[in-house]
Amino acid sequence: MVEGLVNLSGTNQNLINFDEAINLILSLKRYIVVKTKKITLNKSIGRILSKKLITLCDNPPVDISSMDGYAIKKRDCNKEKILKVVDESSAGSPSKKKVLNGQAVRIFTGGAIPFGTNKVIIQEDVKIISKNKIRITECNNSENTFIRKKGTDFKKGNLIERYSILSPRDLLLFASMGYGNFEVYKKLKISILSVGNELLQPGQKTKRNKIYASNAYGISSLLKKYSCKCEILPISKDTILSISKNLIYALKNSDLIITIGGASVGNYDLVKDTIKKMGGEFIFEKVNIRPGKPTFAGILNKIPIIGLPGNPVSSYVCTQLFVIPLIEEIFNLKPKNFSLLSVHLDSDIPANGSRMHFMRGNVFVANQQKIVSLKKEQDSSLTRTLQESNCLIIRPPFDLAKAKGDKIDIIKLI
Amino acid sequence: MVEGLVNLSGTNQNLINFDEAINLILSLKRYIVVKTKKITLNKSIGRILSKKLITLCDNPPVDISSMDGYAIKKRDCNKEKILKVVDESSAGSPSKKKVLNGQAVRIFTGGAIPFGTNKVIIQEDVKIISKNKIRITECNNSENTFIRKKGTDFKKGNLIERYSILSPRDLLLFASMGYGNFEVYKKLKISILSVGNELLQPGQKTKRNKIYASNAYGISSLLKKYSCKCEILPISKDTILSISKNLIYALKNSDLIITIGGASVGNYDLVKDTIKKMGGEFIFEKVNIRPGKPTFAGILNKIPIIGLPGNPVSSYVCTQLFVIPLIEEIFNLKPKNFSLLSVHLDSDIPANGSRMHFMRGNVFVANQQKIVSLKKEQDSSLTRTLQESNCLIIRPPFDLAKAKGDKIDIIKLI
Repeated sequence: MVEGLVNLSGTNQNLINFDEAINLILSLKRYIVVKTKKITLNKSIGRILSKKLITLCDNPPVDISSMDGYAIKKRDCNKEKILKVVDESSAGSPSKKKVLNGQAVRIFTGGAIPFGTNKVIIQEDVKIISKNKIRITECNNSENTFIRKKGTDFKKGNLIERYSILSPRDLLLFASMGYGNFEVYKKLKISILSVGNELLQPGQKTKRNKIYASNAYGISSLLKKYSCKCEILPISKDTILSISKNLIYALKNSDLIITIGGASVGNYDLVKDTIKKMGGEFIFEKVNIRPGKPTFAGILNKIPIIGLPGNPVSSYVCTQLFVIPLIEEIFNLKPKNFSLLSVHLDSDIPANGSRMHFMRGNVFVANQQKIVSLKKEQDSSLTRTLQESNCLIIRPPFDLAKAKGDKIDIIKLI
Repeated sequence: MVEGLVNLSGTNQNLINFDEAINLILSLKRYIVVKTKKITLNKSIGRILSKKLITLCDNPPVDISSMDGYAIKKRDCNKEKILKVVDESSAGSPSKKKVLNGQAVRIFTGGAIPFGTNKVIIQEDVKIISKNKIRITECNNSENTFIRKKGTDFKKGNLIERYSILSPRDLLLFASMGYGNFEVYKKLKISILSVGNELLQPGQKTKRNKIYASNAYGISSLLKKYSCKCEILPISKDTILSISKNLIYALKNSDLIITIGGASVGNYDLVKDTIKKMGGEFIFEKVNIRPGKPTFAGILNKIPIIGLPGNPVSSYVCTQLFVIPLIEEIFNLKPKNFSLLSVHLDSDIPANGSRMHFMRGNVFVANQQKIVSLKKEQDSSLTRTLQESNCLIIRPPFDLAKAKGDKIDIIKLI
């Protein structure tokens, strides 16, 4: 038996609770080694930094002007004073003159502050008398010298860490630090396998008694946002042969395998049987939650495998509940998924039974309060209500009935 | 002069306010015709639907069971009743038998409800007596028949519209509706041109008095999320020749041109001069906001052109304030950008002057309230404070001083 794995049988006695399941899922991290690669700046959006960055320069690189005007000595800042303009300094083209008393340098935003000056007088406060002469018309002796000090933004050698998916503003910062490329984690390779005689590929002609294999598309596009590269395998029939053929392919090409469907207790649920026959072991086989009771996880040939239920809502919700936290763990991301929000109910809801329940709902703001509205239909086959919802209302086991206006915890659907 | 354009000169008298600028920017839509293309389902995440979709099937396609159990007639649902199991129905493999009184069909989740039955009794409420005989042990005569009615999720011929960027749950729904491909807008082609003698390409070695051209990378990765394909052009020197060379290339390859830098009133700000020389016209040349006063917009050779200031914070903020709303308009998206949030200040702030001010801040939740904390440094060259902020605090012209705890409007930084 693989170290640290428990071999549970398929009976209800082995139903584990949500927190246990999450901890077991996170333990799968040890089977996954993600490699890193250099990536160019303009391809790095949505990727994840694999190590700290060190700033390569000071920003600003020297003291610079924050306005268009004239660089002068503070002591020359007197109303009606006439100054001789001796040079010019603009962004990228600094003046090399040393400025003396009674002299000024024409300066533009971003221009280096010339040697000998310590203030910029803005051009609105100056009158040009002749080609090389200005008169100070307004002399604001405030603290503001309109000088941006070298290194105000960041200094060379500063360490920058990120535990989140790189955002546009991260790239802006890395670019201004001088990085044209840097190291990120390679994408996690995930194979997604849908199982079921009833399944048609989207795009095929409708057939009586058949439904479209939609789950894989929702899940793969969600995982794409988390630096994963998903391959949707051909649909498996409900036979050990068909399932094992796909699994053999997946084992060669994946860091993680996700199966969809074929995981409940009916006679025709063959995914777990196939995994067992192929030498796989489970860390859990069902979880005391709704939707998602048939979710399982295990190891097959050293590759982690997560089994999601066949109903679209269950599989999507369980991707958010189980797969995303594992990916956050693998990539060292700060977990964002379970930031609970406490909001007000807009209707009464009955007590919950013994299973933890994640109910679809809509959260919105009204009268400066966050309100959640429970979806009337909670059937886990309904893709439309999933699309229309924006959150999951969390009902722990035996949660008491709640009344309109009471507070309740939600998580946002991603 | 191009129809509908006003030709403003470059003086302060032509400073327009924010609302006027937004309206003028949105009017640029008429110069942009976005084409459409067919796209396969698994490439469509982040794209935008160009027309309504019609559902191609009912979901579920027939009445199906929501549980594993036995399909029976309601009238046979009596405790201790013995029924003969005459067939089997599973997802994709329906029973074709007509069920008579005293008979049952073994059924699995997703299996079609056999003709003659109108209830599913779950397997936990049944005892198997022999191969073909069951006894009902528990008879819950509740409303719940465990039957999912044909078309509960959606019916064939339903119209689906989306005025947002396609999400994973959208794709899940479209897949379950039977779509393998559908029509989306082609990506908007945007050229981004940074101008300035002081600019280095990120990745180049640091040089005294030079700074990295970071803005284009932040802006292009932000626009990528809005179905835009950005090309970052080589950096232009502060010469009409260098700028016009890039603009000539951009005119051939873009739906929209964005310039960065070279737009304030200094002698070395040549972008607007170049555009004028090339026959371009402006719809506005500066806006009474901070950051972002030098922002301009116009038309060059029938291609809209937006000029953003050179400071990183200004250019990023103005992309959110001006470019994103134009893109939302072009793609018929529901504008999400200006959903104001009213939150509490965590410190006093002084009165605002005559310029509308978008101040960087951080919004967070504490004691069930949304609180905003103003960044101490508001200098528009600081990329680090931009990266660390998550919202913009909105100060209309002449907004009065506010005290800690007062409410104030913010928008989230994207």
